[in-house]
Amino acid sequence: MSSAAPEIIARKRDGGELTPSEILQFLEGYHRGDVAEEQMSALLMAIFFRGLSDAELGVWTDTMINSGERLALSGLSRPTVDKHSTGGVGDKISLILAPLVAACGAAVPQLSGRGLGHTGGTLDKLESIPGWRAHLSNDEVRHQLETVGAVICAAGSGLAPIDRRLYALRDVTSTVESIPLISSSIMSKKIAEGTEALLLDVKVGRGAFMKDHDRALTLARTMVALGESHGVRTRAQLTSMDEPLGRAVGNAIEVRESLDVLRGGGPDDVRDLTVALARHMLDLVGIDADPAQYLADGSALRVYGEMIRAQGGDPDADLPLGVHHHSVVATSPGVVTSVDALAVGVAAWRLGAGRARKEDPVSAGAGVEVLVRRGDHVDAGEPLFEVYADDLEHLELGVDSLSGAVHIGESSLSAPPLLLEVVSASE
Amino acid sequence: MSSAAPEIIARKRDGGELTPSEILQFLEGYHRGDVAEEQMSALLMAIFFRGLSDAELGVWTDTMINSGERLALSGLSRPTVDKHSTGGVGDKISLILAPLVAACGAAVPQLSGRGLGHTGGTLDKLESIPGWRAHLSNDEVRHQLETVGAVICAAGSGLAPIDRRLYALRDVTSTVESIPLISSSIMSKKIAEGTEALLLDVKVGRGAFMKDHDRALTLARTMVALGESHGVRTRAQLTSMDEPLGRAVGNAIEVRESLDVLRGGGPDDVRDLTVALARHMLDLVGIDADPAQYLADGSALRVYGEMIRAQGGDPDADLPLGVHHHSVVATSPGVVTSVDALAVGVAAWRLGAGRARKEDPVSAGAGVEVLVRRGDHVDAGEPLFEVYADDLEHLELGVDSLSGAVHIGESSLSAPPLLLEVVSASE
Repeated sequence: MSSAAPEIIARKRDGGELTPSEILQFLEGYHRGDVAEEQMSALLMAIFFRGLSDAELGVWTDTMINSGERLALSGLSRPTVDKHSTGGVGDKISLILAPLVAACGAAVPQLSGRGLGHTGGTLDKLESIPGWRAHLSNDEVRHQLETVGAVICAAGSGLAPIDRRLYALRDVTSTVESIPLISSSIMSKKIAEGTEALLLDVKVGRGAFMKDHDRALTLARTMVALGESHGVRTRAQLTSMDEPLGRAVGNAIEVRESLDVLRGGGPDDVRDLTVALARHMLDLVGIDADPAQYLADGSALRVYGEMIRAQGGDPDADLPLGVHHHSVVATSPGVVTSVDALAVGVAAWRLGAGRARKEDPVSAGAGVEVLVRRGDHVDAGEPLFEVYADDLEHLELGVDSLSGAVHIGESSLSAPPLLLEVVSASE
Repeated sequence: MSSAAPEIIARKRDGGELTPSEILQFLEGYHRGDVAEEQMSALLMAIFFRGLSDAELGVWTDTMINSGERLALSGLSRPTVDKHSTGGVGDKISLILAPLVAACGAAVPQLSGRGLGHTGGTLDKLESIPGWRAHLSNDEVRHQLETVGAVICAAGSGLAPIDRRLYALRDVTSTVESIPLISSSIMSKKIAEGTEALLLDVKVGRGAFMKDHDRALTLARTMVALGESHGVRTRAQLTSMDEPLGRAVGNAIEVRESLDVLRGGGPDDVRDLTVALARHMLDLVGIDADPAQYLADGSALRVYGEMIRAQGGDPDADLPLGVHHHSVVATSPGVVTSVDALAVGVAAWRLGAGRARKEDPVSAGAGVEVLVRRGDHVDAGEPLFEVYADDLEHLELGVDSLSGAVHIGESSLSAPPLLLEVVSASE
């Protein structure tokens, strides 16, 4: 166990600034096993309270990147641009966005993690497709980017390996909610991934990790600065996450809704947000194309099919929902004033679509279909949600979570905008 | 690993108050092994920042006490009163105080820990006496209290076992300096020990753990309240620790100085503080005796001899100092304006008298003799310290630490008082 570690912890605890060599010593010591889990845990909690300066955060992130390999994406025939969402309820945007941006001429290397808690993971959603595999070798990633233009897969264990351990440690020690720790975790993996440009979709609201607008803005600015200082053109779009995105929340059910959008239908909010994010991504790499057109003409759908097939999946497979289902109905008539994204996210999670621990399996068929939106008139007894699960026990847990998830009043205000601030490097 | 633990950590982190059942769940879970070291470490750091309310601290301390056994000291023919010092440089008071108070008619069950860092441990000092053993069974402790009236020995591993693990964890995670954590650590062991009354010698100043007077006062008040609420009559004496206590700092060298005091000589400050603390202890258990008289007439020396012999030691043994020694001399003439207790403590530690880690051995013969006091006139070349070590390497380390330890000026202010506030339950 490192004897210098307590001094470094104490300096941060007391509000001091750590030197580059102290950060290096601590993180590399942790990587080697000389700094114990309990020492890292104490430092993380001290950072929760004291923060990290820009200089500290830069070195912290560098050290995490340098602890592992980097993907070599240069030399591709297309510019690379990735997107990362901080996690929302019903956020299936990646499934549509990656093939759409690829159809417009960019390469999208979307290396993802798995969902934890009430916001679902993109990999979990795609794994509801028979045969589809999340794990690719670096060569396979590169080849697929060259041939298809889009890849969504699991981030390999070689990228920022310190971050993988820190992520698990933060989860059990309640040191997740720290802006510098969140920023360095996300950005170390994205920088190591080697993308030229990155769009961050920073969710804010009841159903988001960041409930507070100012904190979300600080997170966005911190990540944009970190990306830019590492040579990645980075932009952040703050988006509202008070209500679920689209109608589908779960795994297979979200893939089905994504296909609806790729085929020209689906909910307006999902389509509008996807196109808006695509415009930012294309702008970041200087591609002058209208993504709405590539969505409308079926190009995105075609790339989606190639992307799924390249990873062993059948894009046309039937995706069944849970065999047990139940309608949650309105108990009184009125106007829907809001649909609580957090409650819907928790319900989907408890139905079996999400996991409490990273080793838990998830159900492909579990999920929630949201049947009403803000402003809709409903009668007593009218269905608000259709709920799916693999067994009655999960079904009941999910149904319980939805009581009170729809607020019904006499009249509703119009929905707040989905797209909030954009944070660019120039700010 | 406990899944409720992250929620409890998060509540404390965010400034909330933990319920009794949450504290019980967390600490007992830790004791059983369900709450991991890293989770405890995160909670300790959160407590460092957020503190514990009186109610939380009471339950926290109770749970630590209830995790182990209690010594049954009731039924002794004498009232029991213990003393605990928060640690000073040259603080050999216990060696004189325990037999003195026993000579006056009380029973003194002084169960101690070992020194860590620059303040020496009472057990380490006594272990420089050939044959003396620190480890006694509970029956031996009780028997010695009945027959001799005083026992200084190692606190058994059965007392507040959670505290033993927390103590080690706090040391490596820099979560030592927290008033509720210090208070519960000290008081859980003293309450489990079963003493009827307790005097706390809370050191404040450059050479003390608490540098700041207000924090020392808060610590004293917290511990007094905790003792009283558990049925232990508790009082605290704040004492100054800017300069070393007495002339001797080390192990054998401090035992020698203690014997000087027991024989009627020795430094005034050591004798005066011992008598003042003895008066408090006797007052706490209602014994009307003048300790100065029992020190002067040799009664305390007689009990000291019995106490040492009862634990296998030879009270008359020769206690050699380190074979390598060196005089640190004044480089300029003038008046001594201060002797830096911290520098002297660190020097003794580096000479080999103290340990950096709890498993390190200590040297019996290493130590510092302080040859000058505030107000003394010194000439250039006149010895300030005589330094002892077992080898030249340690000798050099210790000598280095003493450069600048004596401040020499043109005139000195009179020494501040050694005895500061008294904190009693009635406050």
